[in-house]
Amino acid sequence: MRLPDPPEIEALLRRFGAGSVEALARLLSLVENHPASRREIVSRVLPIDGQPIVVGVTGPAGVGKSTLVSRLLVHFKKELAPLAALGFDPSSKLSGGALLGDRVRMSEHELDGDVFIRSMASRGHGGGTGRRVHEALALLSAFGFKLVIVETVGAGQGETEIMQNADVIAVVVAPGLGDEVQAMKAGLLEIGDVVVVNKADLPGADLERAVLLDSLSLGGPGGRASVEVCSTIATDGTGVPGLSERLLEIHRNLERDGSLAKRRQERARAHFEGILRERWTELLDDRLADSAPDALRLDTGDNPYDAADRFIEKMLRSTGDHGRAGQD
Amino acid sequence: MRLPDPPEIEALLRRFGAGSVEALARLLSLVENHPASRREIVSRVLPIDGQPIVVGVTGPAGVGKSTLVSRLLVHFKKELAPLAALGFDPSSKLSGGALLGDRVRMSEHELDGDVFIRSMASRGHGGGTGRRVHEALALLSAFGFKLVIVETVGAGQGETEIMQNADVIAVVVAPGLGDEVQAMKAGLLEIGDVVVVNKADLPGADLERAVLLDSLSLGGPGGRASVEVCSTIATDGTGVPGLSERLLEIHRNLERDGSLAKRRQERARAHFEGILRERWTELLDDRLADSAPDALRLDTGDNPYDAADRFIEKMLRSTGDHGRAGQD
Repeated sequence: MRLPDPPEIEALLRRFGAGSVEALARLLSLVENHPASRREIVSRVLPIDGQPIVVGVTGPAGVGKSTLVSRLLVHFKKELAPLAALGFDPSSKLSGGALLGDRVRMSEHELDGDVFIRSMASRGHGGGTGRRVHEALALLSAFGFKLVIVETVGAGQGETEIMQNADVIAVVVAPGLGDEVQAMKAGLLEIGDVVVVNKADLPGADLERAVLLDSLSLGGPGGRASVEVCSTIATDGTGVPGLSERLLEIHRNLERDGSLAKRRQERARAHFEGILRERWTELLDDRLADSAPDALRLDTGDNPYDAADRFIEKMLRSTGDHGRAGQD
Repeated sequence: MRLPDPPEIEALLRRFGAGSVEALARLLSLVENHPASRREIVSRVLPIDGQPIVVGVTGPAGVGKSTLVSRLLVHFKKELAPLAALGFDPSSKLSGGALLGDRVRMSEHELDGDVFIRSMASRGHGGGTGRRVHEALALLSAFGFKLVIVETVGAGQGETEIMQNADVIAVVVAPGLGDEVQAMKAGLLEIGDVVVVNKADLPGADLERAVLLDSLSLGGPGGRASVEVCSTIATDGTGVPGLSERLLEIHRNLERDGSLAKRRQERARAHFEGILRERWTELLDDRLADSAPDALRLDTGDNPYDAADRFIEKMLRSTGDHGRAGQD
């Protein structure tokens, strides 16, 4: 990606502020692919007045998440426009244009300006998924969306972290996806506010539902007595209005009892920590790059532990002096 | 793994010094699974007099690396006993006992004390493969092995790094392993001193060899005109004596022209850098753990970039003072 000039970012931010979806899309690309411009862009849209409702939708590949997200968008749109979806599933059908084709005719909604859909690479340069979802959420929040759905395939720690940072979380499963998926599901179930059995018209759906209710009533870690199970058929929309209402109801309850504020603080904290860790590593990288090769030359008999201690002590002493000088 | 008492490590090091293979095996387990004892153990065996010849053997799964390594051990054993092999291939057959079964009867060699074989998990707690191979090599070098073969499956950056740190590197391929393997091979070829076409009796071996010679003569990055191609049939030993001799010859040439000393310094430097990065991350982890939760509480409107800057400045100032106090 071409490096943007500062005046270009300035112009994009101005158009972003005036509600240009095109500027939003371009800023999201910059934040995703161009680490050096992240700080300026994100800093300029903070602080944000009015947070959107952030709904996480996660689950194994093949359970119908994308179709379900599209249906939810259609339903939420009536009350909560404008709204957006961020997809981090590499196999996701959530992307502009061909988006779900003729099944729910999402492209129509995209064009009317009420629904913004963005598919992001699940792995990118300069930062994991978690970091990028925070920056993208900051932009979407500042743009004024009332609701944002984040969709992930739910595999790996990074994705679990993103999900833990959503306001309200739906974990989607489907009947008959085999043992591997069953195992993956077990880890995901713990983070859901709602577990959705999609493809409820398939054989095995009732059994799936019964098994889930049974395992959830046993109470997982933290004894989530409040997790509930919904059934949907995303392809024809069955169960989607009920699920939408439940997600909003859970959101209102979390807001009322203070849990929502806590989840959002955790989200802000996770973003901060991601930036902090990256900056900390950069400090060391810079110092290693600046060091004369001879200063780092070790022979096979040298003690690498002692050498690492000396390097860090020296680095902290000079950086500490620098910090002090800057302070005086 | 149970935490060892300091006197226990002391006793193990004493027995290690007296040539106990059992103590070596136990110290390797500690270094692999018990990060807190690494420094003491590795520091106590340094400096090392007399480095072993370190042969890296890498290549995609299924090309017959383990069988080839066993054959090489049998051959090298005549001149270079005692010798050792470290396997980092999760599918490797290089492990005590069942080791290659009746094909080359390696277990026999294991028992006679001249050949030590160790299979290490390719992913473990507390440190990547690269870090652990360095520590294991330090122990094996100090124990007095004259030659160590390190076997990896050659997938991923960590494994490429290990291989770059061997004295001399054989990249093993085999005919007819499909497109995916062909792609993987391309990345591996760049790091080899010798490319071995194993299973040379299979159809396609001659073509494979011709294609390799052709692509290698084009000169990869760095124009490795000196890479050569050998053919072997590890299962019956064909070509193994020739390969063994070539590896030792390349090693002698590298020693003569000073490249070997440079590779070993790079290896020591990589070990140092691994330790340095781990210690640097621990400093931040410790500080984050010590910080009162309120000090890290961010609200959604706070600028996480500014907060990260403040945190690091404060941390460097106090750690710098501490470093200075320790110095005066």
